[in-house]
Amino acid sequence: MVKTKVSGVRQKAEQARAASKRLALLTEAQKNAGLRAMAQALRNRREAILTANEEDLRRGEEAGLSTALMDRLRLTEERLEGMAQGLEELIHLPDPVGEVMETVERENGLRIEKVRVPLGVIGMIYEARPNVTVDAAGLALKTGNAVVLRGSSSAFYSNRMLVEVLHQALETTDVPVDGVQLVEDLDREAVREMMTLNGWIDVIIPRGGAGLIERVVRESTVPVLETGVGNCHIYVDAEADPSMAEHIVINGKTDRPAVCNAVETLLVHREWAKQHLSSLAARLQENGVELRGCDRTRALADHVLPASEEDWRREYLDLILAVNVVDSLEEAMEHIDRYGTRHSEAIVTDNAETARVFLQGVDAAAVYHNASTRFTDGSQFGFGAEIGISTQKLHARGPMGLKELTSYKYRVLGTGQVRG
Amino acid sequence: MVKTKVSGVRQKAEQARAASKRLALLTEAQKNAGLRAMAQALRNRREAILTANEEDLRRGEEAGLSTALMDRLRLTEERLEGMAQGLEELIHLPDPVGEVMETVERENGLRIEKVRVPLGVIGMIYEARPNVTVDAAGLALKTGNAVVLRGSSSAFYSNRMLVEVLHQALETTDVPVDGVQLVEDLDREAVREMMTLNGWIDVIIPRGGAGLIERVVRESTVPVLETGVGNCHIYVDAEADPSMAEHIVINGKTDRPAVCNAVETLLVHREWAKQHLSSLAARLQENGVELRGCDRTRALADHVLPASEEDWRREYLDLILAVNVVDSLEEAMEHIDRYGTRHSEAIVTDNAETARVFLQGVDAAAVYHNASTRFTDGSQFGFGAEIGISTQKLHARGPMGLKELTSYKYRVLGTGQVRG
Repeated sequence: MVKTKVSGVRQKAEQARAASKRLALLTEAQKNAGLRAMAQALRNRREAILTANEEDLRRGEEAGLSTALMDRLRLTEERLEGMAQGLEELIHLPDPVGEVMETVERENGLRIEKVRVPLGVIGMIYEARPNVTVDAAGLALKTGNAVVLRGSSSAFYSNRMLVEVLHQALETTDVPVDGVQLVEDLDREAVREMMTLNGWIDVIIPRGGAGLIERVVRESTVPVLETGVGNCHIYVDAEADPSMAEHIVINGKTDRPAVCNAVETLLVHREWAKQHLSSLAARLQENGVELRGCDRTRALADHVLPASEEDWRREYLDLILAVNVVDSLEEAMEHIDRYGTRHSEAIVTDNAETARVFLQGVDAAAVYHNASTRFTDGSQFGFGAEIGISTQKLHARGPMGLKELTSYKYRVLGTGQVRG
Repeated sequence: MVKTKVSGVRQKAEQARAASKRLALLTEAQKNAGLRAMAQALRNRREAILTANEEDLRRGEEAGLSTALMDRLRLTEERLEGMAQGLEELIHLPDPVGEVMETVERENGLRIEKVRVPLGVIGMIYEARPNVTVDAAGLALKTGNAVVLRGSSSAFYSNRMLVEVLHQALETTDVPVDGVQLVEDLDREAVREMMTLNGWIDVIIPRGGAGLIERVVRESTVPVLETGVGNCHIYVDAEADPSMAEHIVINGKTDRPAVCNAVETLLVHREWAKQHLSSLAARLQENGVELRGCDRTRALADHVLPASEEDWRREYLDLILAVNVVDSLEEAMEHIDRYGTRHSEAIVTDNAETARVFLQGVDAAAVYHNASTRFTDGSQFGFGAEIGISTQKLHARGPMGLKELTSYKYRVLGTGQVRG
């Protein structure tokens, strides 16, 4: 379908709202055809996309962006192919819309069905990575939602070209092109307007650093799905298997330190610490990890810098690990309660009762027994796709896949029933 | 357990947060013992409660409160007994906390369980009816949540006495008394503070008029569960059975006009209107309903006042009904989309395909075929209890019972699994 050009955040949200009504009625086959066309278009227009991305990279270099940010901004043939394959994987996931989640027959003969429906219009506010543009558009389409995208200014040219390519792809299908909207105004006022379009946008999902997320939570009057700052802990209990603990801690810290499910603070029971902390510390250091520890840690292991209060709060997102020796399970749980961000928390122990108390008492989206925190992820949980990891308790918690982008309505079927 | 007195909204929220950790670990039997004690205390302390209520009524009269508001404020022996029985009914409902909602076994041997947990701390901001104080405390206890209550100043003495009675009841049980907190500061600043206590309060539920709800949605940084303004419609299709339509419309309007699931606008297909609108209008008028209609309505029925644009938007909550004759199903659906509040919408028709299009295309918490909108209610849906009716799409939609006051966490059980 052909798209009408307009400008302004409100107009884009209105167009998305109108498109969302048609999106909600599309069949699974129509939505999958849209996904297939989007994937193919990313491949066909590869050069145009990479050229636009080069413009962002050139400006990023001029602006002195860090190596890490430049890496997140960079598109390559391989990354584009990954984005196309991500869209194709969505085709094979079941369409959640229309699922009858529950049915009750009431005594008066009323039949009440709880039916899964799209959320409507999703607002995405995100930083750097241009792949979010494509991922969000694909997830929204598969779930029958419209999406209003607002990426960062550093990815402006990449995002604009990606959306142009997606629009061209959708024009050949039954999917309304207006279902994918890109806000091109780069001032903060546009973001503020987007966050207060109650009635036009049903939910805002921020993806980015703690500063962005805090701003959205503070300023948005549209409901927010808060995603992921992860100050995650592993607690190594007195009865932890030394080799298992070592594997899990090294994996949690070094597998991919820049992501939110990486471990940031290690808590060690003093009995285990006496026997094994020195060797665990050495193994971490061999893997390039800088350690910052409490006094007891520093007395037991070499080359450990002193940890300050701030270290317990930090999400390093780097090869740095804070280490705190504790006297008990309770002290470990109190530490997690005080400093954790309710993301992913793990215990390593051979004692089933100790594990039970930890798993029940620790308040987090994911609690682990004898496994790495790195598994908190949509694909690892078997969701097939993920739009972010929720650290709030309302609506969705932990990895958010297709179902988490839906709502429901009650369909009530009668034969003339009245009340009273 | 014994309660420590403190003042200030923040301290109350902190106490509630601390209590919520103990509440989450209570057994079903412990929670039910608390509910039983609360119900009994309402009966034992009946006189003290009614005396406190008289003080509110006396001040309400002085302040010139409307008859409707005075009626909502008034407690009687019968109403108190109803509140006590409401608590006892919660005892018989299954405890949702701890339910394993889903289990997956991954190829690597990880077992991932999705487990229902309490939300934590619920903030209630509500107007008039003192029964909300008791209902909310009971629902929160059954679901393992702490609650911070902020009622209206007009019910100050009633609410304070009710909470005192509930506290005394809980002191004899294992339930932490601090799990029920009443904010006694009556200035607006206290409400503002409550709505921004992110980290201490997990969700705010406003109960009251449109003004209160709008303010909470606009100002709260804590996630909000928006409840119920209901501008509900009944669409009488060309192929509606006349007698069924009459029953449903009269029930929807007159059974209890002051509640949110009452019908406010009647949409009638022009073909049906020609034959039956005159008699339906007369029957409504016999039942004391004032009609405000479009020109076509006024040409077909007697004693109908002219409807203005504002009448399509109004939630009358009174024996007044707006009537609009439409040319088609599509026009009816467009009217609902433009003026409805996504609460409860009904169609009366004998045509199954017409009903299907209406039920799928109308965006509302509850959509009805051949039944009264008055059934949108927790008890009518079989939930056994209700804390409000959500008109938003995130987290919960429609009547909110016990499950809607819970969240979940993922419990991941491993044998040393690491990633990568």
